[in-house]
Amino acid sequence: MIAPRVAEGFARQGFAAHLGLQLQFADAGRCVIGCDFAPGLTQHMGMFHAGVLTTMADNACGFAALTLMPEGRDVVSVEFKVNFLRPARGARAVATGTVLKPGRTLSICRADVEVLDDAGAPTLAATMLATMMAVE
Amino acid sequence: MIAPRVAEGFARQGFAAHLGLQLQFADAGRCVIGCDFAPGLTQHMGMFHAGVLTTMADNACGFAALTLMPEGRDVVSVEFKVNFLRPARGARAVATGTVLKPGRTLSICRADVEVLDDAGAPTLAATMLATMMAVE
Amino acid sequence: MIAPRVAEGFARQGFAAHLGLQLQFADAGRCVIGCDFAPGLTQHMGMFHAGVLTTMADNACGFAALTLMPEGRDVVSVEFKVNFLRPARGARAVATGTVLKPGRTLSICRADVEVLDDAGAPTLAATMLATMMAVE
Amino acid sequence: MIAPRVAEGFARQGFAAHLGLQLQFADAGRCVIGCDFAPGLTQHMGMFHAGVLTTMADNACGFAALTLMPEGRDVVSVEFKVNFLRPARGARAVATGTVLKPGRTLSICRADVEVLDDAGAPTLAATMLATMMAVE
Repeated sequence: MIAPRVAEGFARQGFAAHLGLQLQFADAGRCVIGCDFAPGLTQHMGMFHAGVLTTMADNACGFAALTLMPEGRDVVSVEFKVNFLRPARGARAVATGTVLKPGRTLSICRADVEVLDDAGAPTLAATMLATMMAVE
Repeated sequence: MIAPRVAEGFARQGFAAHLGLQLQFADAGRCVIGCDFAPGLTQHMGMFHAGVLTTMADNACGFAALTLMPEGRDVVSVEFKVNFLRPARGARAVATGTVLKPGRTLSICRADVEVLDDAGAPTLAATMLATMMAVE
Repeated sequence: MIAPRVAEGFARQGFAAHLGLQLQFADAGRCVIGCDFAPGLTQHMGMFHAGVLTTMADNACGFAALTLMPEGRDVVSVEFKVNFLRPARGARAVATGTVLKPGRTLSICRADVEVLDDAGAPTLAATMLATMMAVE
Repeated sequence: MIAPRVAEGFARQGFAAHLGLQLQFADAGRCVIGCDFAPGLTQHMGMFHAGVLTTMADNACGFAALTLMPEGRDVVSVEFKVNFLRPARGARAVATGTVLKPGRTLSICRADVEVLDDAGAPTLAATMLATMMAVE
């Protein structure tokens, strides 16, 4: 299930396409973004770059928030904080964003980013706590 | 001035090349990273994506910290928080990272990201507060 | 269940006594701290002050981390981030800290702070994401 | 110089009085809060508790933001992040909050907390990055 306005907003992001992000799910305060490993996404040790995991988590939080906003609103990131928990080495990364507290103006969201190995076994690599804002 | 080990670490990042990041300066607890605007770096309103600004700020903080660490150490991001202050519309973004508190294990860093218009006038678009860790 | 070294560390905090914090539980990567409402704990609108909720969450994270550290270690707060989700009006506040990722040096923790009304019904008032460090 | 509405809001905080916080300055996007050391303000090693430094920084950010808001508005903390840079051992703590970006709804602020030794020499002990919100 992907809410149409999320699909539309996601598709307008040049950066999501440049990274190869995939919108897997977006509805009812929840959004899942996936991304396959590629050499262009690495930090200096060959793992997923913190910037990739953060971009995925930011997308997952923002679009999770958008699913709960009135039609006609857009969403922007006010701020976020990310902790990197484990080395992000794997074949694919998946960010799952959830709205902790929806609001007319501000929505507080959390995202977890897991990295999957070749067999699909997940490791929690990063977690984000974010503030999103509705704009007209 | 660019400390050799920073240049080497920066060059090993596939993601930095994929975004077109440029290492402008890295020495004595300070690092500057630049990036020209491109359609592949945009969010859904056509501005620099939060993920691009964050990646630049993370790089600026991490490599600023690396310049103050003993030789042979590497640096990883423990966590960071970013506030987005103004719309990031412009021709170029520049992130300047500074070490607030160097440490044997942890270094606390700040980065400001400015966006420059066509005439080169800067606007402060984002600010990061980050914890970096030295690893062997 | 309260791990003895947590009880001992908690009791050494002059600030916990000054606020009337109560150590309810501390074991196996989890810690719960309670506090009854009092006029000396209010912000300017008469609710629990953000500083009280934060102190409770910081304690809950730190002592949750301590339960998983080798004996003889102490714990200090490297950094934390807190989001305030709802007005903290109530008869009692309860912070529950959990270790997301234990580590030899750094432990990443989360805490939720609920405020209970007179009937004991909880409202999630704040959530923290924190980095704790083991020291000798 | 202390803006009257800041003095009034500060005085309504039961928690500020309970800690012995002193409002030193509040005007034009800047606020300074001081606090003398006392045994009731300590963490388990006898230094200023992280919760005290955070409360001071939160106050300094919030009231700095209030000085730039239209009359009749009140301010609440949306979220903040604090890094603890050095052991907070000293005779007095002073938090200085500054507005980085004022806004009609949200204001982004920074605060530094210094601890002064008996001779008045300052050490930067903590730094905060905060999001404050105007409410009617």
